[in-house]
Amino acid sequence: MKGTTLSVITAIDTYDIRFPTSRELDGSDAMNPDPDYSAAYVVLRTSDDGAEGHGFTFTIGRGNDVQVAAIQALSGHLVGRSVEEVCADPGAVSRDLIGDSQLRWLGPEKGVMHMAIGAVVNAVWDLAAKREGKPLWQLLADAEPEWLVSQIDFRYISDALTPDEALDLLRRGQEGAGERAEELLRRGYPAYTTSPGWLGYSDEKLTRLAEQAVADGFTQIKLKVGADLADDVRRCRAARAAVGPDVRMAIDANQRWGVGEAIEWTNALAEFDPYWIEEPTSPDDILGHAAVRAGVAPIKVATGEHVQNRVVFKQLLQAGAIDVLQLDSARVAGVNENLAILLLAAKFGVPVCPHAGGVGLCELVQHLSMFDFVALSGTTENRVIEYVDHLHEHFLDPVVVEAGHYRAPTLPGFSAEMDPETIATFEYPHGAFWTADLAGLAGTEVPA
Amino acid sequence: MKGTTLSVITAIDTYDIRFPTSRELDGSDAMNPDPDYSAAYVVLRTSDDGAEGHGFTFTIGRGNDVQVAAIQALSGHLVGRSVEEVCADPGAVSRDLIGDSQLRWLGPEKGVMHMAIGAVVNAVWDLAAKREGKPLWQLLADAEPEWLVSQIDFRYISDALTPDEALDLLRRGQEGAGERAEELLRRGYPAYTTSPGWLGYSDEKLTRLAEQAVADGFTQIKLKVGADLADDVRRCRAARAAVGPDVRMAIDANQRWGVGEAIEWTNALAEFDPYWIEEPTSPDDILGHAAVRAGVAPIKVATGEHVQNRVVFKQLLQAGAIDVLQLDSARVAGVNENLAILLLAAKFGVPVCPHAGGVGLCELVQHLSMFDFVALSGTTENRVIEYVDHLHEHFLDPVVVEAGHYRAPTLPGFSAEMDPETIATFEYPHGAFWTADLAGLAGTEVPA
Repeated sequence: MKGTTLSVITAIDTYDIRFPTSRELDGSDAMNPDPDYSAAYVVLRTSDDGAEGHGFTFTIGRGNDVQVAAIQALSGHLVGRSVEEVCADPGAVSRDLIGDSQLRWLGPEKGVMHMAIGAVVNAVWDLAAKREGKPLWQLLADAEPEWLVSQIDFRYISDALTPDEALDLLRRGQEGAGERAEELLRRGYPAYTTSPGWLGYSDEKLTRLAEQAVADGFTQIKLKVGADLADDVRRCRAARAAVGPDVRMAIDANQRWGVGEAIEWTNALAEFDPYWIEEPTSPDDILGHAAVRAGVAPIKVATGEHVQNRVVFKQLLQAGAIDVLQLDSARVAGVNENLAILLLAAKFGVPVCPHAGGVGLCELVQHLSMFDFVALSGTTENRVIEYVDHLHEHFLDPVVVEAGHYRAPTLPGFSAEMDPETIATFEYPHGAFWTADLAGLAGTEVPA
Repeated sequence: MKGTTLSVITAIDTYDIRFPTSRELDGSDAMNPDPDYSAAYVVLRTSDDGAEGHGFTFTIGRGNDVQVAAIQALSGHLVGRSVEEVCADPGAVSRDLIGDSQLRWLGPEKGVMHMAIGAVVNAVWDLAAKREGKPLWQLLADAEPEWLVSQIDFRYISDALTPDEALDLLRRGQEGAGERAEELLRRGYPAYTTSPGWLGYSDEKLTRLAEQAVADGFTQIKLKVGADLADDVRRCRAARAAVGPDVRMAIDANQRWGVGEAIEWTNALAEFDPYWIEEPTSPDDILGHAAVRAGVAPIKVATGEHVQNRVVFKQLLQAGAIDVLQLDSARVAGVNENLAILLLAAKFGVPVCPHAGGVGLCELVQHLSMFDFVALSGTTENRVIEYVDHLHEHFLDPVVVEAGHYRAPTLPGFSAEMDPETIATFEYPHGAFWTADLAGLAGTEVPA
């Protein structure tokens, strides 16, 4: 007899999950030579038997424990609250967490504390979607525009987007939403792949993976650049030769450059027809991105995976600093702030091509793009979700990418839940893998 | 026989220090109604008997433990290193900490991790200044311009300030530095006081403290605003009546407003002749500050206590968004990044009026302004350091403010060291005060 007694959130359990990805140079780029893909993972436990919300934020190894501590600092805001109320209004939870007047000092709305809030807020949405029996993209697409607007914190963005404008955009997005949902279920959402382009890979591996990407149906790949110009020229030439002239090839500097260097270096690679230059400089440098964009056109400028919040995205759009907006599911304060960012992008007419990869970021972010297609922008033109084929096997509802498209998830929730076996194995430092590894068993085999 | 054996850093000890300031509404403003001033405190221990470096970052209560965890995550970069090498080149330490490729993901260069780096870097400077037998301001003022330039990370700012320009500014600053050092020791550095203006104080207390401030020799006070316009009108009127027409009265909204509201609200207080409006909106909103500045002139716009790093300060200056730059000693990555910020301000001709208050921020930041006066900008015109008369008694070398001026410290170091008794009493949650308080002893008296 669910629902007859009040169900409450009973605990926020946290887990420091780390994968030893640095050993294969997966994910290596000019700023991140040796990432150990990690998740500060959170489970909202409830008094409702079996009802749980799962969420996480992504890190690349050291500091994952700091992220876990930050999530724990938030638990007082959730434990004891009614599951029904929390799920009916995740925006109230988000505002409550962001508004903690003492914790706010540690940001505000940026870095460790903001990512922790994102993990918790995303777990609330996972719980809400499971209770509704819908995948998150569908819950959002089915929601009333008025309710979605109520989920957004317009503080600091109303000079660029008012609640009324947001409502108009969402109402317009409802037209034809049913047909687009069917199209989505039939065809999926376009993806591009970064798998060929890690900086630590040999030219041979790069070429082989680039050819494979085209054979697999991808129409865009991405290469890491920025460590050494001669290497970049050689690698871009090899990749362009492998994929031919019609497949888009993006390049990604991972913030390696200052403004002047970004312009020079990007233009030095122009002969290989890069589609966009991603993270040419500091994610905080709005005016710098605007200068880079002016200096490298017609090559497009993209950023977002490290953009800290909606206020910086707002300015990137106001300043005309980007051609492509790369929101991340777990960098900002979760679904609510990403709704604001999707609406800002729609208002300014800038396509969203989300950042993904790492661990679990593909699983999460697909829901946001699919909602955007079905019920907001209404298009996938010039829009692709990043795809990297790492670590999906650790999730209970892993992404499925076929013929260059993400297949729409149909299971209830936010696709955030990890296999319990994974948690037992990769929890740091006491999981089975790390216990063996830290005991000095050389060459510990990484379980599949 | 100091120096004959290699001295190394043996440990980084951390302490979660919290003061129950919320009980008196000290420090209450429109965004921070009940701060418990706190410090995530770090001591660099060395193998050199008695040589220690002390540093901290400031928080307002909850989350101080997250800050401590972040500092601990950095310890591997310092422990075991030569004290001599570290003190000879704190810039190398700073770059090493900022450059940790895995921890960098948690920022980059913002929020919890960046403040943690600031605490550690500041502790290195405290150690270095103690070894030199000089107060930090003097160590910096005596340093060779070339060495100071080597201490700065120009990444992401060289489009606004090149190393050569920095060198020129510092060389120009050397002219007359000796005379200015004497003047500083004789007269001190101008201060303004925020003590009258906390939002939680009654009008009677506000008036009494404002009159006292003038009697004490201050030529500027500051009031918190932004919660309720009618209250602000009444309080500004009372304060202006108390101080007369010639004392500057700044107002501070602590990020309460969006852009449009900031302009309207500030202009509604214009009749009381506010000198500056501080933190009118999000510290991340560079374009927003520029719009506010255009909308409230001739009232000046000031911000900085929450500005996350040199990249955002650079843009505030590039965009002509601020009249007054309010750097904070413990928000960015310590002395090295603040040198970059002081140089940017000098390049753009914008006066620096540092944020202080909280616990220990006055003690730290006075050194930066004094260096700036002696050996960089060469002036105190339109420059004042914030002063709040709270918690100084907990430091071994507390600030001394007389006749509206900070007296120049003369003891070696960065004035960062707390009384051991304070640490024993206010360490959270096991110090004597908190043990009694958390045991529920109602009305626990706060030790002086």
